[in-house]
Order: sequence, then C-alpha cells, then structure tokens
Amino acid sequence: MNAENIIRSKRDGRELTREEIEYFIKGLVGGKVADYQAAAWAMAVYFQGMTRRETSDLALAMAYSGEVMDLSAIEGIKVDKHSTGGVGDKTTPVVVPLCAAAGVPVAKLSGRGLGFTGGTIDKFESIPGFRTELSQQEFIDQVNRIKAAVISQTGNLVPADKILYGIRDVTATVDSIPLIASSVMSKKIASGADGIVLDIKVGQGAFMKDLDSATELAESMVAIGLQAGRRVSAVLSDMNRPLGQAIGNALEIQEAVDTLRGQGPGDLTELCLILASHMVYLGGAAPSIEEAHALVKGLLASGQGYSKLCEMVAAQGGQAEDLERIATVNPARLQAEIRSERAGYIESLVTDEIGRIVMRLGAGRERTGEPIDHAVGVKLYRKTGDLVEVNDTLAVIMANDPGKLEVARKAWPGVYNWGDEPPLSRPIILGTVSD
Amino acid sequence: MNAENIIRSKRDGRELTREEIEYFIKGLVGGKVADYQAAAWAMAVYFQGMTRRETSDLALAMAYSGEVMDLSAIEGIKVDKHSTGGVGDKTTPVVVPLCAAAGVPVAKLSGRGLGFTGGTIDKFESIPGFRTELSQQEFIDQVNRIKAAVISQTGNLVPADKILYGIRDVTATVDSIPLIASSVMSKKIASGADGIVLDIKVGQGAFMKDLDSATELAESMVAIGLQAGRRVSAVLSDMNRPLGQAIGNALEIQEAVDTLRGQGPGDLTELCLILASHMVYLGGAAPSIEEAHALVKGLLASGQGYSKLCEMVAAQGGQAEDLERIATVNPARLQAEIRSERAGYIESLVTDEIGRIVMRLGAGRERTGEPIDHAVGVKLYRKTGDLVEVNDTLAVIMANDPGKLEVARKAWPGVYNWGDEPPLSRPIILGTVSD
Repeated sequence: MNAENIIRSKRDGRELTREEIEYFIKGLVGGKVADYQAAAWAMAVYFQGMTRRETSDLALAMAYSGEVMDLSAIEGIKVDKHSTGGVGDKTTPVVVPLCAAAGVPVAKLSGRGLGFTGGTIDKFESIPGFRTELSQQEFIDQVNRIKAAVISQTGNLVPADKILYGIRDVTATVDSIPLIASSVMSKKIASGADGIVLDIKVGQGAFMKDLDSATELAESMVAIGLQAGRRVSAVLSDMNRPLGQAIGNALEIQEAVDTLRGQGPGDLTELCLILASHMVYLGGAAPSIEEAHALVKGLLASGQGYSKLCEMVAAQGGQAEDLERIATVNPARLQAEIRSERAGYIESLVTDEIGRIVMRLGAGRERTGEPIDHAVGVKLYRKTGDLVEVNDTLAVIMANDPGKLEVARKAWPGVYNWGDEPPLSRPIILGTVSD
Repeated sequence: MNAENIIRSKRDGRELTREEIEYFIKGLVGGKVADYQAAAWAMAVYFQGMTRRETSDLALAMAYSGEVMDLSAIEGIKVDKHSTGGVGDKTTPVVVPLCAAAGVPVAKLSGRGLGFTGGTIDKFESIPGFRTELSQQEFIDQVNRIKAAVISQTGNLVPADKILYGIRDVTATVDSIPLIASSVMSKKIASGADGIVLDIKVGQGAFMKDLDSATELAESMVAIGLQAGRRVSAVLSDMNRPLGQAIGNALEIQEAVDTLRGQGPGDLTELCLILASHMVYLGGAAPSIEEAHALVKGLLASGQGYSKLCEMVAAQGGQAEDLERIATVNPARLQAEIRSERAGYIESLVTDEIGRIVMRLGAGRERTGEPIDHAVGVKLYRKTGDLVEVNDTLAVIMANDPGKLEVARKAWPGVYNWGDEPPLSRPIILGTVSD
C-alpha cells in the first residue's frame, strides 16, 4: 500500500478500502503522506466522489486521528448541534439553554468565524468577561451542574481534518460533499456527544446552494453518525436570506436574548424551536419530536430558557446582568441608516455579500487569527418579500471606523434584488433527515 | 490573480489564460504557489485536459522558468532528438553520428534512466573514459569542430518542470497528455535546438499505450514547437517489443555500434534511418525526407556514421579503439541461457516487465541517484512473431550477482505470451506527424 496507488485508485473511480483510507489519513498526520499527495487525492475525490461507506470510513479515520473528548463523566445522553455556516446564524445561544432547561446536557465545542460566516465563539466573546476556554474538568463539571457549556475547540482534536482542511482551503477542493460531510462529522464524533443535530444551511449564503446537494450532504452525515454509533438528525434551513435581523457579534447575542425572551424574529424563533426539539428528542427528554417541540416552546414562553442562558453566562464568568441590553454596553460609535431610493418588493438578498460587507466592517476575519470588533454589524429592517416604499429604512450599519463605514454604505445597495411582484415566500425549514 | 482561483478555473473546465499559466509556473518556482496547489492543479488538468493553446503556453512558461541554453555560437541549423522512453532504445548513439556525418550539428543533452526505461547517458558511460559532463564552452566547441556532442543535462534548466514532475511522479498525475507534452517540449526548447525530432513510443512498454493517444501527444508537441518557433517532427514507433535485441547499457552500445557497421537488427536500423533522415531534413542538409533518407543510408553503408561515432567518443575522452567489442571489455561474470520449454509462436512480449527485470539486474534504477551496473542485461534471441521449437534459446541473461540472476531467470518465462498462429506482424514505424 502506498499513497500514490491510493490516489490513482480514486482518480480511476475505484472505491477505496477502509485500510487504504486509514493508511492515507494516518500517513498524512504522521508525515508519510505528503501534503501535495493529499491535495491531488482531494481533487480526485472532487471529481470521482466517494461512496457512503468510504465517506464514513474517512470520517472515522479522521475522528480518531488525534485526541477524542471523553464525556463519559457527564450524566445523561449528551447532545450537540452543528451549523454548516451562514449569515446571522445565532441559534446556539438560543437552543443550548432551551435543551439544558429541558434537562438534556449540552457540552458544546464551537469555532470562530472565517470568511463571510460568523462563529459562535466570537459571538459569546462579545459578552464582557465570558470565558470560552475552560479546562476539560471545568467543562465537564459545569455541564453536570447546569447542563450547558459552550467552549472553544482546544487540544489536539482531529489533527487530520486540520491538515486536510488547510490544504483544501487553498486548492479549490472545499466543495465536495464527501469531504464536507467527513470533515464536519469527524469533529462532532471526536467531540464526544451521543446525539448530534445538524443545521444544514441551503441557499445563496451557504456552502450548499440547492436542496438536492444539501439533502445528499445531510444523508451522508446521518449515515456517518450511524456507523459511528451516534444518533444524528439533520434540519435543512433556508440561507437565501440572513437568519433574523442582526448580523455582527454583540448584535446577534442581543437578538438571541430577545428570542429567548419571546421577542425574536419569526424565522429565528421557528428554527431554534425545531433544532432544540430535535436535540431534546435525541436526548431522551421527550418521546416524540412533537412533544419535544411543545416542551421547548413552553420553556421559551416561561422564560426558563432565558434563565438558563443567564446561568450559563454567569458560570463562564460573563456579566449576565447586562444581557438584556448587551448591544448597548459597548456600542459602535458610528451609524449609517440606509433608506430606500425606490419602491418595490425585495425579491432576494445577496446573502453572502451581506456577510462579506459585515466581515469587512470588522465583525469577521478573512484569515485565521485576525482580531475582530464585537460591536460592529448591520441590523436589517426589511428582508426578502417585504414591500418597500421610497425612503423606508432598509438597514442600519454600525461601525467604529469612518472609512469602513463608507465602504459598507457604498456597497450596501448591491445586496438587494428588486421586483414588482411579491416573490414566492419560502419557509425557513426546508426539510429534515433522520436515521 | 491567485493560485486557488486558477486551480478552480481548471477544475471547472475553463481555459486558462497565458497570464494565469505564467503566474502559476513563476509562482511555483518562486515559492508563491505551494507544491500542494500544483498537485491539485495537475489532478484538475488530468480530468479536464488543456487546449493546444494552454499546453503551448505551459511549455513556454516552463521552458523560460530558468536558464536556457544559448547555442547561437554553433554554426548551422542545430537539431535535437527526443525519445519518450522505451525498453532497449539505443537510437541516439546511431542517429547522432549519422546526422553529424551529414554535416548537421547535433548538440544533445540527454538524461539518465529511471524505472523500466533506460537512459542515454548511462549507456554512453559504459564506454570507458567517456565524459558526459562538458563545460558549455567545451560542448559548443566540440559541436562546431565535429558536429556532435552528447552530454548530461546540467545547470538550472527548466526548474519548473523539475518541481512539477517531482510532484506528478508521486501524485498519479503523470499520465496526462498536455502535462507530458509540455514537460518534454519545455526541456527541448530550453536546450536550444532549432529543429527537434521526437520518437514517440507506442505500446505496452511505453507511456502511450495506443496509437490514438500517441498521435494526440505528437500533434500537441508539434504545435508547441510551432509556437516556440522551432521545427518539430514526430515519429511514432512500436514499443510492444523491445527495440533491437540488446537491453542493458554496454550491450546496447555494442548493438548501436553493430548497427552503424551495417550489422544491426532490422527494426533498430529502420527506426534509426527514419529518425536520422527527419533530423537531416530539418537541419537543411537534404531537400526532402526521401533524399535525406538516401543520404543517411549511404553514410551508414559507407561507414562514415561509424567513423563519426568513434570521433565523438574520442573527443569526449572515451576509448574508441575498443568500441567494436565494447560488450566484452568488462563483461558480466555470470550468464544464464533461457531455453524454451514449449513450441509455438511468440504472440507478444510483456515489454515493461522485460524492462523491470533488466532494471532489477542492476542495469537501471528505481530511484534517482542509485548506481547502476553497465555490464548486466539481456540479449533476446527470439522476439514477437518468431516460431519457436522446444529447447530453442530464447534469451541470455547477463549478471554480476547470483541472487539477482536467479530472480531474473525465474521471472523471465512471464514475459512471453504464446500462440499457435503467427501474430499479425506490426511495422516498427507507425506514423509521423510534422508541422
């Protein structure tokens, strides 16, 4: 067995054996397989695809390429949630407290934002004092005590994925369903949860542009979970528009708080309740999805979800007393109100461009490791399907740098596609895939 | 412009601009394009191919990625010859003297063998004293004085090809016609000749397995030459059997000498006369291929070609007086005669396996830089199409190591495919492609 023959097999459309996949992944981490061999192999996978069996074997080989989290000291069925990344996605600070309030333990590792999609860790760090780095013991203790913790990925989890993703990112081999599925699932498997709920974003502001490929990705990930002995549900949700109205770190935490207090945007609230009900069902706190949904809806209405968020923020050192007005604690110094110069229906929003504009304001980063500005962002007052009159406020841009504000202001009109008729309304939830 | 976008364009089947190709090749040499990016790109080229225009631009970008030979100090139209590599290919020591004897200057850079194909430089080094490393000035002076020199590639010629080939070799991206064509032609262009004759081997013992792909390769290389302002002719020759009877370095020089003295095998003699006539025609020493053919045939018959070889060998420090019996100067110590255990027709020879057996005897190398044994090899007494009786001598294996001899002897029967009917006879020359 050698790397070149494995690349040639995949190039020629043959199915790789589990042994070949393990040899390749171990070799990549151990230095026997060169990064240029991984790059050629990834491109061959791009063209030839992988069977479900190969994809599962790849995910497992990567999951066990380094340390894996041992969550056995946490009582109960641990659940986790993963989003494939979108614009304005602040579901984690809503669904984690709802599940915890239902008694289901959530020990969540999250990441930072990159490119036009934001990261949950960045969002939580806009809460003054909030610690995203806990020791393994602190993490486990907190979940046992209050059922919820959200921390930054640390340690040597899935080194194979880190290497492979680093290569894919600069070799035009990101857009491959088996490679995306195995990358995500390897991290979730190594993170140790028993049940995993995936939020797969579909549309112009997501990796998956259409429902067919998103469904294929979902099925592939559910199959990987099955082989790894984890229960997985995937929710497909629309990302042809940002989720909710707020984009930017503190602004999004504010919107999550508002949602837990019953005052959130409809699309965000609906998606959070669906995701939380799948998590609660997998966690065994309700006998069906429907009953789980009723349970979390009640926890939201009663304020128990919000109380749990406050409890978790306090446990991780954050100032919970300011949460209700978090966006005004350290607000951006500059604002620009964008008013409509025309009347008509907003037919669609160029969602990835919205993400990029907000990133360039300083809310996100183009390269790993860059600092970000938690205060800046955009609030959308009109979204897809809305009828707009001349001079209506479309959005407000919040910035700390006049030059960056000007760049965003100039670019902003380009995010709207206008029409004279109301567009077909799209639901936020497009489907679910379960094992 | 950046490497990832160039890879993505090729991945998606788009034609790259000259600027993109130059950016990528310069970046590869300069370190701005990573080797893993080159690997992913090469795999994308494997799947998507390249247009003639892209292939030419790639060859030129590589040709001028480092030093180029300046042969302007050599009088006349300089011609060069390249073989795509086969088993038993000893045309260079025959055709170079024939061309030089016709007054056409040949300033030839050659390489060493790798894998199952031999290398011209290794063959010449089996002549005691023969120097394959001359200074640029010695090289040019010798060609001006006697019209012929064959030296080893030195200096920083085509660094881009060295890097790219090193990557392709271990990433299953060698078998791509545009990449092969641009690799070969970049080296020939950088070597400075005005006219280039390509010997493209076709068949089981060559890179190109069938006539269609060999023709495509030939056309592609002729087109590159045209764009580079060089005249190129390609001869397609059969490599479903070794060329001639001898395989192994000193044995092959002996056969080349025999051929120049009018006593060579028919297939080798025929191919050498065709290659030399194309070179003489491109070099302007005859007004047509037919007249060039008559000219070189006469130079062979008169012994002038052989005299020229002796002159070149002497000029480069070799013992020309021993050439006529070169294979017996330092003979291998051990021999094994292989006799047939059956009667029948040799339907075909597993040519690449013959090459590998001889390589493992010590005549070739698996890895760059390994030492070789000039004395060892095989002499074939029966070839494809021959009717064989039981106990006929099929071949004689010459070795210096009893263990290696035994390995070769055991493997040898596997190189024959037998039949009861005479196979269709195949000509040695399968076609020519010219500009």
